[in-house]
Amino acid sequence: MPLRVVLVAPRNPLNIGAAARAMSNFGFSELRVVNPYQVAFREAKSAVKAHGVLQNAREFSSVAEAVADCTLVVGTTSKGHRALEHPLRRLETGARLLKKKLAHAPVALLFGSEKFGLSNDDMSHCHSLLRIPAREEHGSMNLGQAVAVCLYELIRNPAAARAKPEPRKSASAGDLERMTQILAEVLETSGYVHAGVEGSTSLKIRRLIRRMDLSAHDAEVWLGMLRQILWKLR
Amino acid sequence: MPLRVVLVAPRNPLNIGAAARAMSNFGFSELRVVNPYQVAFREAKSAVKAHGVLQNAREFSSVAEAVADCTLVVGTTSKGHRALEHPLRRLETGARLLKKKLAHAPVALLFGSEKFGLSNDDMSHCHSLLRIPAREEHGSMNLGQAVAVCLYELIRNPAAARAKPEPRKSASAGDLERMTQILAEVLETSGYVHAGVEGSTSLKIRRLIRRMDLSAHDAEVWLGMLRQILWKLR
Repeated sequence: MPLRVVLVAPRNPLNIGAAARAMSNFGFSELRVVNPYQVAFREAKSAVKAHGVLQNAREFSSVAEAVADCTLVVGTTSKGHRALEHPLRRLETGARLLKKKLAHAPVALLFGSEKFGLSNDDMSHCHSLLRIPAREEHGSMNLGQAVAVCLYELIRNPAAARAKPEPRKSASAGDLERMTQILAEVLETSGYVHAGVEGSTSLKIRRLIRRMDLSAHDAEVWLGMLRQILWKLR
Repeated sequence: MPLRVVLVAPRNPLNIGAAARAMSNFGFSELRVVNPYQVAFREAKSAVKAHGVLQNAREFSSVAEAVADCTLVVGTTSKGHRALEHPLRRLETGARLLKKKLAHAPVALLFGSEKFGLSNDDMSHCHSLLRIPAREEHGSMNLGQAVAVCLYELIRNPAAARAKPEPRKSASAGDLERMTQILAEVLETSGYVHAGVEGSTSLKIRRLIRRMDLSAHDAEVWLGMLRQILWKLR
């Protein structure tokens, strides 16, 4: 089911455009705008970069009309307190519930105007409220950024967060020992190691190279570089 | 340890301002800017809304200098392919690793210019790359929005995502039965229910009210409304 992103009374064409761009980035297409500042809406729609999402945006004259076909209406707020006895949830929790509903029914996600956010009247059309967990001292987010963060939470993959970083192919002990030998020769030829103290130095070099934790690919690169240096030194 | 947010060659003062705002929203303060378009940087700094983050932003003439004091340098890219043999991770995974490092060492998070992103040269200063999981067909995000989404992922609380919605106090069977009785009287008095069929209707009403799944508070409100209506009807 498509998510309806509803901007209530937006004033700034750049924000309308930014909301549309984030929707396109994250794969959402139904943009609805309630009572936009008309100049802003026209300007946003006619912007060179305006793409499909914005071109197809629908305009409504009230929140009631904009959400009429939705079975769940969720408002966003930057305030930490519960308004109008609505359930108020952190984005992480609220988005999970929203996604569950979205699987089988249309859902509206409302954003208020840049200056005032959603009014109490707007919120009374909502079943629940979402709060992006910004700092209390500076909770008010830019509209375009708030839309981007909410939509990101919706498409975010919890499994990816738990994923282990992909394993890389580590260098074999054989490669590391070849490196150790060649580096030892290079150091001897260049005069870094003095004859007679070679034994302890070669142990130091062996440990130094093991601590590099090289990938198989990088060990090969190092071997190539060291061979060339040794060739030149001789 | 503070995170250093590094904007490389940003062109648009609004984006520099938006990045700073998102940082303030999510509690990050160290903004570094490399080779900004000078007019943009001055304009952003002098904007009325520019707050502490932007005022304290430091300017550098190369990526190397901007990240010199960091022990982990992570670049952001919108491209899905691996560049320069760097580990490329989805934001969900990469942010987790970044947070782990950030607990005990300074980390830099790099964002490229609006038009070109990070160059191969910029990326060669990075230990790994992050990719916001946007659509392949439209992966390029607005700079301010990309910063907001990455920082949100860093402050996001995984425990909150698993949290159960807070329990609410449900109406007691006693309250629901009182509502059932009063609604039945209202319907009888108003002529909705005809004498003789009252029995089956009262069962229907009882079930109707149970399906409302009312909270204790809302059941009280309904009782008040129904009592008033009944009083007026008589």
